[in-house]
Amino acid sequence: MSRPASRRPEYHKINKDLFVLTYGALVAQLCKDYEKDEDVNKYLDKMGYGIGTRLVEDFLARSCVRRCHSYSEIADIIAQVAFKMYLGITPTVTCNNSSRNEFSLILDKNPMAEFVEELPAGRSSLCYCNLLCGIIRGALEMVHLPADVTFLQDRLKGDSVTEIGITFLKKQDEKKYRQKK
Amino acid sequence: MSRPASRRPEYHKINKDLFVLTYGALVAQLCKDYEKDEDVNKYLDKMGYGIGTRLVEDFLARSCVRRCHSYSEIADIIAQVAFKMYLGITPTVTCNNSSRNEFSLILDKNPMAEFVEELPAGRSSLCYCNLLCGIIRGALEMVHLPADVTFLQDRLKGDSVTEIGITFLKKQDEKKYRQKK
Repeated sequence: MSRPASRRPEYHKINKDLFVLTYGALVAQLCKDYEKDEDVNKYLDKMGYGIGTRLVEDFLARSCVRRCHSYSEIADIIAQVAFKMYLGITPTVTCNNSSRNEFSLILDKNPMAEFVEELPAGRSSLCYCNLLCGIIRGALEMVHLPADVTFLQDRLKGDSVTEIGITFLKKQDEKKYRQKK
Repeated sequence: MSRPASRRPEYHKINKDLFVLTYGALVAQLCKDYEKDEDVNKYLDKMGYGIGTRLVEDFLARSCVRRCHSYSEIADIIAQVAFKMYLGITPTVTCNNSSRNEFSLILDKNPMAEFVEELPAGRSSLCYCNLLCGIIRGALEMVHLPADVTFLQDRLKGDSVTEIGITFLKKQDEKKYRQKK
């Protein structure tokens, strides 16, 4: 991720609840449209992907993040800068394998599901916030970092936390990512 | 509108673009689902109504607005407090009739349509932001102020501004609304 010039210095924020309730309406509509949870999940991911590809430019412009040297740094930036900027939360990051390309973002609470107490009846496989996975995937793709992004745990499914898994698919190019300080 | 105790002191904000793009995905989905613009408009209004009925409690708690004595004051609060709080803009308010129950909110720019340059092909009657009308209608209904809320002008349709018309349907109760300072 490079350091682009600040394109839009103003930093607009809106009330979270308006977003959360509108997102709920979107999920409800997709549940009407698609009978299978898998199809709703897939569609949310696809929608998110499109959003991610558009958000990333804005994110790079506003965040002024420095060039990353490892997947670990990228995961930290997603958690500490992007989540903070867009959702007002900072997930914890863990690395899940020795090749250091699999990470988890652990969310103690998930603002996007704030008004959802449980999944709708008969929708036990719904990944309610799958838009998020798509957004991360789309944004990473745009900076040439293809990744698999999925929910590994979800408080809406009874897990104690919500966990998003990110697996970077390209072998880390040591030359490209080596420390250049 | 009364002055309730502050229920949730923290005042969460999120990035506007995430909301705007998610809203765009919702409208696109409804355009897939419903062939007629009128049906999309109706559905957006209905969804917005549901959102408004939920947002209003939060709005009253956070805004600590004082009791209003006239429809004119209510229109001002919608523009200056609610729009500012939820969308970060402050529309201009005009009163459109001598019985002072018809008002317009004039938006020089509409953040919800920020990424939309024009209406989709074959969708010339779409009220892209009709969710907003529903939200206002739903919120007003919850404080016993039934109203018609519709777009009178829309920049996406070539008008120079976006104008939301609010017509309060109950005759103003002079006793209830008389000045009590």
